[in-house]
Amino acid sequence: MAKDVHPPRGMRDFLPLEHAKRTQILGIIRSTYATHGFQEIETPAMEDIQRLTSGQGGDNEKLAFRVMKRGEELEKSLGGDPDALADLGLRYDLTVPLTRYYATNRAKLPKVFKAIQTGPVWRAERPQKGRYRQFIQCDIDVIGDSSILAEIDLLTSSLHALENIGLEAATIRVNHRVLLSNLLEQLGVPEDGRGSAMITIDKLDKIAAEGVVAELTEKFDAQVGARAADWLKAISGNLPVPAELKEIFEVVAAQFGEGRLRFDPTLVRGMGYYTGTIFEIEHPESGSSIGGGGRYDGMIGRWTGEDVPAVGISIGFERAVELANDDRFHATANNLVLVLDNDSPAVIASAVKLQPALFEHGYSVRLELLPKKLNNLLDSLAEQGFTHFATVGEDSVNMDSLVIKPIGN
Amino acid sequence: MAKDVHPPRGMRDFLPLEHAKRTQILGIIRSTYATHGFQEIETPAMEDIQRLTSGQGGDNEKLAFRVMKRGEELEKSLGGDPDALADLGLRYDLTVPLTRYYATNRAKLPKVFKAIQTGPVWRAERPQKGRYRQFIQCDIDVIGDSSILAEIDLLTSSLHALENIGLEAATIRVNHRVLLSNLLEQLGVPEDGRGSAMITIDKLDKIAAEGVVAELTEKFDAQVGARAADWLKAISGNLPVPAELKEIFEVVAAQFGEGRLRFDPTLVRGMGYYTGTIFEIEHPESGSSIGGGGRYDGMIGRWTGEDVPAVGISIGFERAVELANDDRFHATANNLVLVLDNDSPAVIASAVKLQPALFEHGYSVRLELLPKKLNNLLDSLAEQGFTHFATVGEDSVNMDSLVIKPIGN
Repeated sequence: MAKDVHPPRGMRDFLPLEHAKRTQILGIIRSTYATHGFQEIETPAMEDIQRLTSGQGGDNEKLAFRVMKRGEELEKSLGGDPDALADLGLRYDLTVPLTRYYATNRAKLPKVFKAIQTGPVWRAERPQKGRYRQFIQCDIDVIGDSSILAEIDLLTSSLHALENIGLEAATIRVNHRVLLSNLLEQLGVPEDGRGSAMITIDKLDKIAAEGVVAELTEKFDAQVGARAADWLKAISGNLPVPAELKEIFEVVAAQFGEGRLRFDPTLVRGMGYYTGTIFEIEHPESGSSIGGGGRYDGMIGRWTGEDVPAVGISIGFERAVELANDDRFHATANNLVLVLDNDSPAVIASAVKLQPALFEHGYSVRLELLPKKLNNLLDSLAEQGFTHFATVGEDSVNMDSLVIKPIGN
Repeated sequence: MAKDVHPPRGMRDFLPLEHAKRTQILGIIRSTYATHGFQEIETPAMEDIQRLTSGQGGDNEKLAFRVMKRGEELEKSLGGDPDALADLGLRYDLTVPLTRYYATNRAKLPKVFKAIQTGPVWRAERPQKGRYRQFIQCDIDVIGDSSILAEIDLLTSSLHALENIGLEAATIRVNHRVLLSNLLEQLGVPEDGRGSAMITIDKLDKIAAEGVVAELTEKFDAQVGARAADWLKAISGNLPVPAELKEIFEVVAAQFGEGRLRFDPTLVRGMGYYTGTIFEIEHPESGSSIGGGGRYDGMIGRWTGEDVPAVGISIGFERAVELANDDRFHATANNLVLVLDNDSPAVIASAVKLQPALFEHGYSVRLELLPKKLNNLLDSLAEQGFTHFATVGEDSVNMDSLVIKPIGN
């Protein structure tokens, strides 16, 4: 039986040191965003399955884990459409729940709502290296502000958060859906083909310029292909930032220096709901994007019947953890292991009595019974990040009587 | 459509101030346990459904939310046993996942493993006041130590954590499953009736002594009933602590004073897996228990084939949040709202440039555009816990030029 004991496919257990690193990084991101006046909220892990599959979630909707109805409701649904067997689903992102949350709670929220949301999401994807079925997302959103202040707030806060976790080299590619639409018009792509054309342009990384030209030619005609080829040639190298983005670039550059934002006219972002600016976060040490977002002014109206401007950005937490330097996030707390001579009540009482004074001196204090071999215990504790120990007997009556030694030196 | 927008039944959205209180309380509990040398870990929200329903979870197994198979696997299962439609389930507690985690990862863990686990669990219960379908559990466990040091570590750490969140009045009732077995033997309950007799005694709170005597008489015979009546009469008032628990009580009393532990020979705890000490945490302002636990030396052997001693205790996080004083946990951070004259890039740039110096002075800095009515904005921000503001124009070039005013006074 033992060989079969593992977490579900594509999901992970976290060992203490790994968990500590993740918690520290997440804590820094959360507190940096709070420092910018964003407010943290929480929604349930599940949402009604209808809401999760109503077209807001794009391709991710197909990846939702579905939660079965129970009792009579399940009985009634057996033998029919399998989709009717589920009434709930696990969230596959934090954006669909956020828009639902805003629709539910907007009367109790400030007019411009600046939200921090971090937490697990679940996707029934084929597991592969670096891709998991449960992973953490880390979003901020500004709802209710149509001005560029919202974009600037998101970008400066995110660059600040990335710096604080040691990813100063991160940059953000920026584009605007309106620019993309204008471009497609100039290429001669008919209006009803623009979604499809964007999907092709989004593949530029994978299929290169030739591939994009070929696919556009096939989807539309040779003229569209030829114009696209000219366009792709023209945009190599550094491009002037267009008017739609200029002010955002200037304010961010004044704060973080030039080059942290880069205009990329080929940036598409997959989701259909984007209506304005779009972002993708990059890092020189990562082959893929480490986050992204954009403006989605039409989405909340789907729940409330009234459009509300909204823009969000997400740091890819799992990528950020991979990139972040382990040494920086290893446990550094002042820790002390008290090794008890034996398990007599008198010795245990001595050790317990020592704890408060040691706590006051800033130590964490772990109690351990002396095993047959002290060295085995110390080696094992060293692996767990513990750094100091002292032995305790019945006569260890105060802190000063302890001889504190480093572990493993 | 708008009226229909709410989270799933029995699950909650958390508004920013409520979320802040919860995060603070959870943070204090987690860091107190870490101070005692416990190590935080994490398991996935889901486990294989077979594992979740293998008899370890008691009545909670029936409350597991089941997650549907997908694709071909689902196709193959349609039309058959409805139980076969699910391959995963959401965890209903943190103990079953912990024992699975230990079985999976024990080679990489210290010999005595002191675990902190906090996180949501899900139960498909009928929602009612104070009972939710998603709620936080907050557990510590000591695995691999059969001595009373494990119990003492759990009890002192938990009393310390409760104190740190302001619940100094919490006490812990303690009993031992061996004492319960001895008692039932003395009452004349046959060995195969002991589980059933414990279920009856567990109802003492609800059905009183007469109810327990009547039910035992009905389940067994009049002699058992009469002996139980004598026993229940004899145990009113303060009882001497039996030898099995005496040393634990003495060490805890030396640290926390008398009366924080109370021997209760009628304490049963529902779960079948307990083998030794059992605990239940109480608070004078709460009608129901605010946590509990016990020793479960046989449970890990179910996964590994080899018994490992284990004992755990859980603080009922949702109850603790209800009891904890709001004022103590309201946002008190040094916060400042910069109200921008207008949304021109020059004014936005001024505000963004002011942020780093204000951060350095310990402020969080939220940017807001001046709306038509400043007072409406300030009132709304006051409700969110923001306390100070300053207006910013193009000429606000440094911190000293800001006039910082309190909000709402």
